[in-house]
Amino acid sequence: MSTKRQLNLCIGFNTTGYLTYAWPYRTGTKTDIFDLAYYQQLAHLAHRGRFDAVFLSDNPALSVEPKGRPFHTLDPLTLSTAILAQVPDIGAIATVSTTYNLPYNLARSTQSADLLSGGRLGLNVVSTFNPLSAANYSADPLPPREERYARATEFIEVCKGLWNSWDPRRAEVPDDLYWNPETAKSINYKGAYQVVRGPLNVPRGPQGYPVLAQAGGSDSGIELAARHAELVYCSMLTREAAREFGRKIRDKAADIGRDPASIRILPGVVPIIADSRDEALRKHELWSGTGSEDGLLKRFVAENGLDADTFDPDAVLTPEDFVPKQSRGASVGMQMGLTDLIKYERVTARQAVRRTEYHHRLLLGTAEDIADGLIDFWQDGSVDGWVVQPPRAPDDIQLFVNKVVPILQERGVFRRGYAGDTLRQRFGLPLPA
Amino acid sequence: MSTKRQLNLCIGFNTTGYLTYAWPYRTGTKTDIFDLAYYQQLAHLAHRGRFDAVFLSDNPALSVEPKGRPFHTLDPLTLSTAILAQVPDIGAIATVSTTYNLPYNLARSTQSADLLSGGRLGLNVVSTFNPLSAANYSADPLPPREERYARATEFIEVCKGLWNSWDPRRAEVPDDLYWNPETAKSINYKGAYQVVRGPLNVPRGPQGYPVLAQAGGSDSGIELAARHAELVYCSMLTREAAREFGRKIRDKAADIGRDPASIRILPGVVPIIADSRDEALRKHELWSGTGSEDGLLKRFVAENGLDADTFDPDAVLTPEDFVPKQSRGASVGMQMGLTDLIKYERVTARQAVRRTEYHHRLLLGTAEDIADGLIDFWQDGSVDGWVVQPPRAPDDIQLFVNKVVPILQERGVFRRGYAGDTLRQRFGLPLPA
Repeated sequence: MSTKRQLNLCIGFNTTGYLTYAWPYRTGTKTDIFDLAYYQQLAHLAHRGRFDAVFLSDNPALSVEPKGRPFHTLDPLTLSTAILAQVPDIGAIATVSTTYNLPYNLARSTQSADLLSGGRLGLNVVSTFNPLSAANYSADPLPPREERYARATEFIEVCKGLWNSWDPRRAEVPDDLYWNPETAKSINYKGAYQVVRGPLNVPRGPQGYPVLAQAGGSDSGIELAARHAELVYCSMLTREAAREFGRKIRDKAADIGRDPASIRILPGVVPIIADSRDEALRKHELWSGTGSEDGLLKRFVAENGLDADTFDPDAVLTPEDFVPKQSRGASVGMQMGLTDLIKYERVTARQAVRRTEYHHRLLLGTAEDIADGLIDFWQDGSVDGWVVQPPRAPDDIQLFVNKVVPILQERGVFRRGYAGDTLRQRFGLPLPA
Repeated sequence: MSTKRQLNLCIGFNTTGYLTYAWPYRTGTKTDIFDLAYYQQLAHLAHRGRFDAVFLSDNPALSVEPKGRPFHTLDPLTLSTAILAQVPDIGAIATVSTTYNLPYNLARSTQSADLLSGGRLGLNVVSTFNPLSAANYSADPLPPREERYARATEFIEVCKGLWNSWDPRRAEVPDDLYWNPETAKSINYKGAYQVVRGPLNVPRGPQGYPVLAQAGGSDSGIELAARHAELVYCSMLTREAAREFGRKIRDKAADIGRDPASIRILPGVVPIIADSRDEALRKHELWSGTGSEDGLLKRFVAENGLDADTFDPDAVLTPEDFVPKQSRGASVGMQMGLTDLIKYERVTARQAVRRTEYHHRLLLGTAEDIADGLIDFWQDGSVDGWVVQPPRAPDDIQLFVNKVVPILQERGVFRRGYAGDTLRQRFGLPLPA
């Protein structure tokens, strides 16, 4: 096995694919997104493509977009458990809410899934920013961001305590006993939001605990990532933004005594693969649901609250108009991409709309172009890999696996086979103490 | 397919098997109970035995019995999801707590697992009687029984509302849309304990919702069973007790307008299969951890708080000494077996200790004896089937499948192959409206 640095790649499923309006252009039925056979097909494709893991985003509420498709439906942890039982090697990263879960249950179900999969589970820990979700849990509104992050911190502390509360390797087992209960210890956690005694009734797993991913881009999100995240999922449209963001998190990690080398930066990327760049541009117009470049520009004006009368699509954009709003009912991290693009590059709106789709970096062109784009920021260490978000599933997973992956493998930056047993090993992450 | 009434059989796994001290006599390692391969082996055996479902009991806390083995460890819903992804036909019934879960999450993960398995999930709904569990969730003590059952009622009402809140079949989908969001409705549940808006972001599954099993034997438990249970897991040592219990639940169901024919009574049964009854008695003494008949009697005295000095193992037992205590930190249902045995039959302690083991009906003898015992109460309709709790896993599952199942099949009371797709169909239960 080569010790040369390798690209890390995860792949998002998102029911019919990442783009809301791309479903009419996909292969599939109107109900396949509820069948295990469908996800098994996607996971086998991803396995053939040697992805590190499938990545399952989530929000615990039905989001209603009549012209789209159900975006978040099957519980990601349940789906991950089923996928991992059917498909070898590949990992699964399930999004879980720290606001709307009981930590003992979450620690237990995730440790169980991790053990049952031989150490292939990851968790994308989110504090849940969608106010719709709150009403599914109580009469209380969504807590303010600061409280959600305070809760998230306690939640992760409890889980880490529980995941490590019973380690059968702590002591020998005499021949006449099946186990030694002294290898399990209470954690007696007492916080402002959580009081949990423990121990967990599931022992430490092969990777200590599931790999922890985190996606928040607000100040509190960065603080949490520095403290706990091993993978950071984010929106980075430029090399400079990615480098700056990675530095910020790693510096903060170092400040609190954590090894900054134990953090991987994995922005989302939306690849639109075609036989030519022009064809990719047309696909982008169709799949975005805007129909044309003018449509893309109109959406840009509307989404960013710009004045349609004075808007000039060919004028260079200024940072002043694109300040992310921490109070907005949206993820700060998801709004970061565009703000940073305008900060680091001189771009017009006409250029900007081709650089990002649904928050993430957009790559348009031939398989070679896509491979170039993925290697580009990665080669110099600005990022460690990508969460690939194919616009359509299964079609663009298939295209990516058949066309882009072989190029990455030929260039020697991506694995041809799986080595190591656990997801943690695939990312070169240390085993928790 | 014959329409003749058939025996329903579930099988409990319970890590190393049902009996705490039987593990030294089993085939296996001291860590196999944490591996999917082990449960896959058990499930494949159960599938070969044509069981309706595997039954996974649970308690969300580590119970410490140094001479035993970890009893409840991997999360039963996670384990069920993995088993169902690997093994066809057979169902899985996972025990879930209505006191220590968030109903939106539970409704979602169970509906997801049910969809992913093609309708093979059941839930054994418990209110959790173990005070140890409470400390894993908050600083509050275990709520009193009445409150737990009030919560359980709301919990199930919320889940039933959510499971039925989005039914894609409610309306046609025009060609240019992927789905029709109007097929999803809020439930706007407002109770004393639960406030949940909905709809669930997972659609109705192939069996409407998972088959609901319930195990409480207290008055509140019976009330809840009459209202919601489709399978009733219980401790019944005699025909009369089983018949009386079934009548009580079905009468109460009829009172509240529910079809009493939609309830199945499935007591637990512990089979000790040997080449002779004598050999079975010796195995019972060993596997119970008491070592001898005297040991069994000593345990009987201690467990029931009898006076060792005046105790006569050959005197007929009187009901007065065996009143189940609703306030005791134990399940009332689990204490019912012995109480009822003494009420309906004239038995001595020496006889009683051979009639029950760890709360359930004990069957001791050859495979023929076991088959006779299973058919016995079932034939006249006193019960609908059994939850078989093999003392050792995998050994006694193997013995049961190889020796007892063929006898049941030859006698025409048990299926030779699977028919129907869903667990609900296997039990002949109606599809929820």
